[in-house]
Amino acid sequence: MVEFSFLQPDRPAAFKDKFVTKVNECLTSYSDGARGEVGVLGLPLSKTSISLSQSSEAPNSIRACLSAFTTFSGKKDTDYKNIKVLDFGDVQVHPTDMEESIERIRISVREMLTRNACNRYILLGGDHGISYPSIRAFGEHYGKIGVIQWDAHHDVRNLEDGGRTNGTPFRSLMEGGHLKGDNLIQIGIRDFANAKVYHEYTKEKGVTIYTIDDIECTGIEPIIKKELDRLSNFVDIIYLSVDMDVVDQAFAPGCPAIGPGGITSRELLSSISAAASHQKVKAMDLVEIDPSKDFRDMTSRLAAAAMLRFMYTV
Amino acid sequence: MVEFSFLQPDRPAAFKDKFVTKVNECLTSYSDGARGEVGVLGLPLSKTSISLSQSSEAPNSIRACLSAFTTFSGKKDTDYKNIKVLDFGDVQVHPTDMEESIERIRISVREMLTRNACNRYILLGGDHGISYPSIRAFGEHYGKIGVIQWDAHHDVRNLEDGGRTNGTPFRSLMEGGHLKGDNLIQIGIRDFANAKVYHEYTKEKGVTIYTIDDIECTGIEPIIKKELDRLSNFVDIIYLSVDMDVVDQAFAPGCPAIGPGGITSRELLSSISAAASHQKVKAMDLVEIDPSKDFRDMTSRLAAAAMLRFMYTV
Amino acid sequence: MVEFSFLQPDRPAAFKDKFVTKVNECLTSYSDGARGEVGVLGLPLSKTSISLSQSSEAPNSIRACLSAFTTFSGKKDTDYKNIKVLDFGDVQVHPTDMEESIERIRISVREMLTRNACNRYILLGGDHGISYPSIRAFGEHYGKIGVIQWDAHHDVRNLEDGGRTNGTPFRSLMEGGHLKGDNLIQIGIRDFANAKVYHEYTKEKGVTIYTIDDIECTGIEPIIKKELDRLSNFVDIIYLSVDMDVVDQAFAPGCPAIGPGGITSRELLSSISAAASHQKVKAMDLVEIDPSKDFRDMTSRLAAAAMLRFMYTV
Amino acid sequence: MVEFSFLQPDRPAAFKDKFVTKVNECLTSYSDGARGEVGVLGLPLSKTSISLSQSSEAPNSIRACLSAFTTFSGKKDTDYKNIKVLDFGDVQVHPTDMEESIERIRISVREMLTRNACNRYILLGGDHGISYPSIRAFGEHYGKIGVIQWDAHHDVRNLEDGGRTNGTPFRSLMEGGHLKGDNLIQIGIRDFANAKVYHEYTKEKGVTIYTIDDIECTGIEPIIKKELDRLSNFVDIIYLSVDMDVVDQAFAPGCPAIGPGGITSRELLSSISAAASHQKVKAMDLVEIDPSKDFRDMTSRLAAAAMLRFMYTV
Amino acid sequence: MVEFSFLQPDRPAAFKDKFVTKVNECLTSYSDGARGEVGVLGLPLSKTSISLSQSSEAPNSIRACLSAFTTFSGKKDTDYKNIKVLDFGDVQVHPTDMEESIERIRISVREMLTRNACNRYILLGGDHGISYPSIRAFGEHYGKIGVIQWDAHHDVRNLEDGGRTNGTPFRSLMEGGHLKGDNLIQIGIRDFANAKVYHEYTKEKGVTIYTIDDIECTGIEPIIKKELDRLSNFVDIIYLSVDMDVVDQAFAPGCPAIGPGGITSRELLSSISAAASHQKVKAMDLVEIDPSKDFRDMTSRLAAAAMLRFMYTV
Amino acid sequence: MVEFSFLQPDRPAAFKDKFVTKVNECLTSYSDGARGEVGVLGLPLSKTSISLSQSSEAPNSIRACLSAFTTFSGKKDTDYKNIKVLDFGDVQVHPTDMEESIERIRISVREMLTRNACNRYILLGGDHGISYPSIRAFGEHYGKIGVIQWDAHHDVRNLEDGGRTNGTPFRSLMEGGHLKGDNLIQIGIRDFANAKVYHEYTKEKGVTIYTIDDIECTGIEPIIKKELDRLSNFVDIIYLSVDMDVVDQAFAPGCPAIGPGGITSRELLSSISAAASHQKVKAMDLVEIDPSKDFRDMTSRLAAAAMLRFMYTV
Ligand SMILES: [Ca+2]
Ligand SMILES: [Ca+2]
Ligand SMILES: [Ca+2]
Ligand SMILES: [Ca+2]
Ligand SMILES: [Ca+2]
Ligand SMILES: [Ca+2]
Ligand SMILES: [Ca+2]
Ligand SMILES: [Ca+2]
Ligand SMILES: [Ca+2]
Ligand SMILES: [Ca+2]
Ligand SMILES: [Ca+2]
Ligand SMILES: [Ca+2]
Repeated sequence: MVEFSFLQPDRPAAFKDKFVTKVNECLTSYSDGARGEVGVLGLPLSKTSISLSQSSEAPNSIRACLSAFTTFSGKKDTDYKNIKVLDFGDVQVHPTDMEESIERIRISVREMLTRNACNRYILLGGDHGISYPSIRAFGEHYGKIGVIQWDAHHDVRNLEDGGRTNGTPFRSLMEGGHLKGDNLIQIGIRDFANAKVYHEYTKEKGVTIYTIDDIECTGIEPIIKKELDRLSNFVDIIYLSVDMDVVDQAFAPGCPAIGPGGITSRELLSSISAAASHQKVKAMDLVEIDPSKDFRDMTSRLAAAAMLRFMYTV
Repeated sequence: MVEFSFLQPDRPAAFKDKFVTKVNECLTSYSDGARGEVGVLGLPLSKTSISLSQSSEAPNSIRACLSAFTTFSGKKDTDYKNIKVLDFGDVQVHPTDMEESIERIRISVREMLTRNACNRYILLGGDHGISYPSIRAFGEHYGKIGVIQWDAHHDVRNLEDGGRTNGTPFRSLMEGGHLKGDNLIQIGIRDFANAKVYHEYTKEKGVTIYTIDDIECTGIEPIIKKELDRLSNFVDIIYLSVDMDVVDQAFAPGCPAIGPGGITSRELLSSISAAASHQKVKAMDLVEIDPSKDFRDMTSRLAAAAMLRFMYTV
Repeated sequence: MVEFSFLQPDRPAAFKDKFVTKVNECLTSYSDGARGEVGVLGLPLSKTSISLSQSSEAPNSIRACLSAFTTFSGKKDTDYKNIKVLDFGDVQVHPTDMEESIERIRISVREMLTRNACNRYILLGGDHGISYPSIRAFGEHYGKIGVIQWDAHHDVRNLEDGGRTNGTPFRSLMEGGHLKGDNLIQIGIRDFANAKVYHEYTKEKGVTIYTIDDIECTGIEPIIKKELDRLSNFVDIIYLSVDMDVVDQAFAPGCPAIGPGGITSRELLSSISAAASHQKVKAMDLVEIDPSKDFRDMTSRLAAAAMLRFMYTV
Repeated sequence: MVEFSFLQPDRPAAFKDKFVTKVNECLTSYSDGARGEVGVLGLPLSKTSISLSQSSEAPNSIRACLSAFTTFSGKKDTDYKNIKVLDFGDVQVHPTDMEESIERIRISVREMLTRNACNRYILLGGDHGISYPSIRAFGEHYGKIGVIQWDAHHDVRNLEDGGRTNGTPFRSLMEGGHLKGDNLIQIGIRDFANAKVYHEYTKEKGVTIYTIDDIECTGIEPIIKKELDRLSNFVDIIYLSVDMDVVDQAFAPGCPAIGPGGITSRELLSSISAAASHQKVKAMDLVEIDPSKDFRDMTSRLAAAAMLRFMYTV
Repeated sequence: MVEFSFLQPDRPAAFKDKFVTKVNECLTSYSDGARGEVGVLGLPLSKTSISLSQSSEAPNSIRACLSAFTTFSGKKDTDYKNIKVLDFGDVQVHPTDMEESIERIRISVREMLTRNACNRYILLGGDHGISYPSIRAFGEHYGKIGVIQWDAHHDVRNLEDGGRTNGTPFRSLMEGGHLKGDNLIQIGIRDFANAKVYHEYTKEKGVTIYTIDDIECTGIEPIIKKELDRLSNFVDIIYLSVDMDVVDQAFAPGCPAIGPGGITSRELLSSISAAASHQKVKAMDLVEIDPSKDFRDMTSRLAAAAMLRFMYTV
Repeated sequence: MVEFSFLQPDRPAAFKDKFVTKVNECLTSYSDGARGEVGVLGLPLSKTSISLSQSSEAPNSIRACLSAFTTFSGKKDTDYKNIKVLDFGDVQVHPTDMEESIERIRISVREMLTRNACNRYILLGGDHGISYPSIRAFGEHYGKIGVIQWDAHHDVRNLEDGGRTNGTPFRSLMEGGHLKGDNLIQIGIRDFANAKVYHEYTKEKGVTIYTIDDIECTGIEPIIKKELDRLSNFVDIIYLSVDMDVVDQAFAPGCPAIGPGGITSRELLSSISAAASHQKVKAMDLVEIDPSKDFRDMTSRLAAAAMLRFMYTV
């Protein structure tokens, strides 16, 4: 064994307080036979975005932000440092073939699930296009699926105008029979951010929609709790799909489609906490963060904070 | 007619979803005899700012942000794509003669109003100095005028120290007899942002002042509604003058005079919605946005969102 | 005396409105025998930060932001232009010897206090490491001291891993007998921002802790008032120690340790106003602002606004 | 006709000096039957880049930079304001189907050439992937083609690893029989920027290579002139393909693959001037500029300056 | 006298090496009767720029950059720390009246010269518009004046289109009889940066023009020396007017009108050195630096380096 | 072994061209008994900088830039992919104790050398303060040492004013008897960048100095070659110490002490190539790069290019 006094060739030389556990220290690369509470998988696909997006850099930037957080919650007076998190790495996407990339994501999520290594999973996009293959794979593995989608947009564009983009995942899922409209809840939909035709399409499909006004009126936690209760009667598992542009541009400046009038970061975190503790919630994706457009990684940092709310629920 | 398969020489090649109408698609350049619901005029004057400001770039950046919004409101379940908006372009200001530029603005607003082409108008500044000639022109055309001013500042500086600047419009209007103090309402005035002398001046002139504390206490919508009711008894038309620095620096980082403790973007949008639906409200200006200081056009984007609340009221 | 028509060789040529007093105009460099209401001292030490920080630039950037504010409060209908503020300048820190720098701060604060020139004092950091020598010096001068600390973090790290850093001031103070844990109140402590060991340490020492949840639940002003009342029974003076990272990253983007889910700038300002008016409150420090990471000096501007709430209390 | 005093609704209100002609004023959108000296076509494709690139924004940013230049050359004592330039607009690329986009480019270039509207053409990329369909189309229209390529890289990657990317255009052209290696000249190839295998591939294909050392030694203008003379014996037309990363990162900071040790902007401009005046040179593309990574549009500005050297040759 | 151990209330606490003299330490504010070798005057006028410019901030940023330089030249083996430099401060310009501001500059320069306090002077713009009143004042004081102008542009625009702007100073001077065209030398004029009409105007007026090609061909130092010799036969004093946009955009990225193909910073510095040592050279202005557009104050730093070449000539 | 189709949990999913070897792929973490041609060690110390510097981030950013380069040189027609490079990681510095950090560096370099694992070494700073312990350690290990220092500054400040900083390494080395002045060559020293006292000190110590003028006059390669020949008669090994601020600010914008008038990046690279091929040259350090101040990692990229010139010499 190499023994130097002040360096370890294979490890970064960051300052270490012996009493502090950073969340990133709890992630270990998955290897055969490993078991953990939560699995993390990166889905760095963003060429499917209608506008050019570097959201493919988000898995890296979100993971890096985990080092800004400790494993201890004063609120619950619990140190979660023994919650093991397995990192499955990132899916290798194809430089020019989008459909191939989408299929690689579906296959990879399935392969991950087949290992039965974890109880719950976090998928790091990428753009919202990744939710189509990801949710499909979860459905294939677990059975009937319900989805709660945080988003300013319906994401049910037609497929003729541009193929499968970040504007189409929920249409692809519903048209393909992978998700029933009745089992999709959309939270945070905004005025002047969607087309009438797509609004009507979601309504016809039976999707449940909550706007910003609804959130202001009722509170986001009560909405989440009510819908989880309802959904859980009809589905085997529930998947949270979090498009960060549901958050106001002041709190999430790094989303490709930023805008005013969204939810606050506090509303985001408390609603994810509320959802994550439900027993049927097995997965969460975090999408539409473009680190190259962000300010001081604020949006990746918010996403990392959201991961903690999902991971540390007991 | 030229027919290429994949290009149109006179049009941008942006992605187009056939079911989506973006707000910018509803703007048409004014031509003789045209009629529309709302007229838009750019007033790119900012050399009148005490501090150097590029708010003269704001008409362009705000218009560009309209392409981030669709014409559909889920809240009102209405698609406003048939509301025609006429763009009168930008007034050509003089490079070095400020008084000439101010006069050109007054003349141009009057010429626009004389066409009787629209029911309501949006004026895009520029700095707050543009409100003096603009409100004057509206008064000359329509008669007795009332003004609701969103602003952290009174804007009634003396004229001797620097001529007509962005700090003087309401003094110029009151001194010139174009606006009675009784018919001016100021919303969002902040502590430590004004001088005692000017505070007293506005009081003496009969101006009604609402501070941030008043807004927190009473709510901004009730204040707006109450004042519209009151004002409408005394005036022929009401003009909204929106200095974006009324908004907190976290939500409007692109104002020259940013500061903490302002209103939120949600308060801005809801109060403009409340005001715009009143029958006597005929015009709104949006001023003091410097795109060169902004982050990701957040402030121009907020201004564009404010335009929608003004344009789409039915 | 030199008399030029349009210039004064020793003064900046900024625009001046004769009726406006900017706060910076009320600061005068301390000279022997001078007296004022508030003393200001810069403590530009940031090499004690665990991560590299340019918070040593903050005394300059905060002072510069004072020129963005006037001395007039509409709320209290008072012009504070006659409140004299004495600027004691900045302590010269050592380029490479941290312990020497800390000692220089302690000595300098004491020397300042010994002059008895002011009733109350503002200390501009620098990182939070400056609070150790500063609070020590206040205790040495005034007697028994109580501290209200706005912070996301406990700041009671062990000293073995890195010496006296910005993570250790309150441990140094309590271990050194300069501050009793019972007399320390921590406001705004966040989940996943501290280690279990340090949480327990503060509890054992008798420190009173208020989390973000407590603030949401009870309101920050009532908490402050209650604790001031309680503390004032046991101590001679009260010192406010304001780590700006207590504020949410959207409102204070220039802190080294930004994060989501903190208090708003309005909560910060109102809580400082509430505290500053208490008779035993004699000092406030403002720390952990790194101007090189800020956006448009928003965080320094917020700090300057906080200074006004402390200075202008009558 | 509408007549306002100071505004024209359909035109920007920029300052105009009556004696100055800006280059952008000489561009007119192509319409049926129009004729001009130079045709300009935008090819905004960059999803074919191996790394994410916003070079699809370059056609717009380069065109915008034309307004920074006048039509007058003091060196030649000539005002080129009567050289008519036809703008064919931008090809509409597909959001997710790369091969479709490449084919659209080939078709669009051919359709443009079929009009016989201009003598010479400028193609604005986009990434270097656009040169494959563009050069193919020129070959199909004009016959035997020679290419001078300014580039730090050979661009002959294998197609199996990632399909047709910005790393493959010249392999695609040679493999497809659209360009003989003997008729390809590469200028500015850099050490440690290419793989041995690809270096050998170009050698075997008969490609002529000039490195930075060759340029330092011989001078870039003499090299260009010599190769033009040689090439013109074997081909019908010559196409200039200018990858801006041939320029040193200090002079072209907006290229995706910036690096030290490239040519200066002066070398770029003089070599393009030298090439453009040759009779067989019919086209030039300008690729690999990502405006989102640039500083003050310096790289687009350099590209616009390069356009002038190509357009104004007499 | 106040005596603190580690602070001086009226002085910054920067690190000081006892053996180093920084150039800024040699500047003293002018007071009645003071004498020095060089006088410095700030002319912060930039609203006369055709495009919005913050070059009014340049006097401050250039002065600040003087602290990056010492007074010692190894080349001449001389320490210039005893060369006294008097700082006359900045002229107070008017916020809205341009002609008034121009007149204030003329008067202030004259008032400065009348004191006979220095042998030579540096004028810090501001935009190039300041050279009109400045050169006029020098002519009024000293008699017949010759000017060497470093510039990419002729700056002889007509006055009808926009009044006296940064595009007109040399026309104003020649038309007003303050400068003979024969006594004006322009260095660094660029292709595609000027209009034919203005090129012809300068020729007719007898102005001597050197282009970039001339500089490459002959070398900039020989040109300067030749022209100084020639000029000195006809004029009483020589004034250097340095528009920083003569420098290539890679070396001077902070000019409003940046462009490729200019001179290098080394050419700038050596040519100013060459000029400054001539006995009839009495003044230099440095204009067209906008610190808000610069990168790390590189352009101000270059300007400060140019100041040293002018100040330290012996 | 885990087998997924499209992901490897422990490896990044970047695009890989099977025929390309990137330089970073040739680095392997040192483990006991490993042997390589070149050893790399990170020395992330920058709190010793007089001004605050994040040059401690440079080891990471320079290593990251290695992925921008391949192992193939066309000039030498050689693929260096089999040159093994051992990465010894980064020395863990102390957060607050500078002397301890300096000693840790000395010990770590010695420990590295004791392994006899490599023939030559690259040390990645950090600020120039690291050269004191690093050169000392090399001397202790190898015997008599000669140094060629690329630098705008002499770096021989007195130690009383600030302790051992980045301004003192060569004084510490000479005073401590670790380096004879006769065996130190300084290349690129600039006017107005040093104090007279320190200039004289180096002269007295027998240091050989080459200024920018010398380089312009003689050429940098001939100087290097001449001095290597001379030095090699007197010393056992030669150490290259490269302070990147020797390079002009246009080419190395990320140095803390940027300035105009330095050498070009081409001069840097060719001079390092010339030096590295000498048999007695055993080590090179690269210091004074602050990635937080850089533009697009241009300066780290230049440093990585310099590493290649050192590593690949055969
Ligand atoms: Ca979405
Ligand atoms: Ca969305
Ligand atoms: Ca205002
Ligand atoms: Ca205002
Ligand atoms: Ca703290
Ligand atoms: Ca803290
Ligand atoms: Ca290429
Ligand atoms: Ca290339
Ligand atoms: Ca000029
Ligand atoms: Ca110019
Ligand atoms: Ca050095
Ligand atoms: Ca140096």
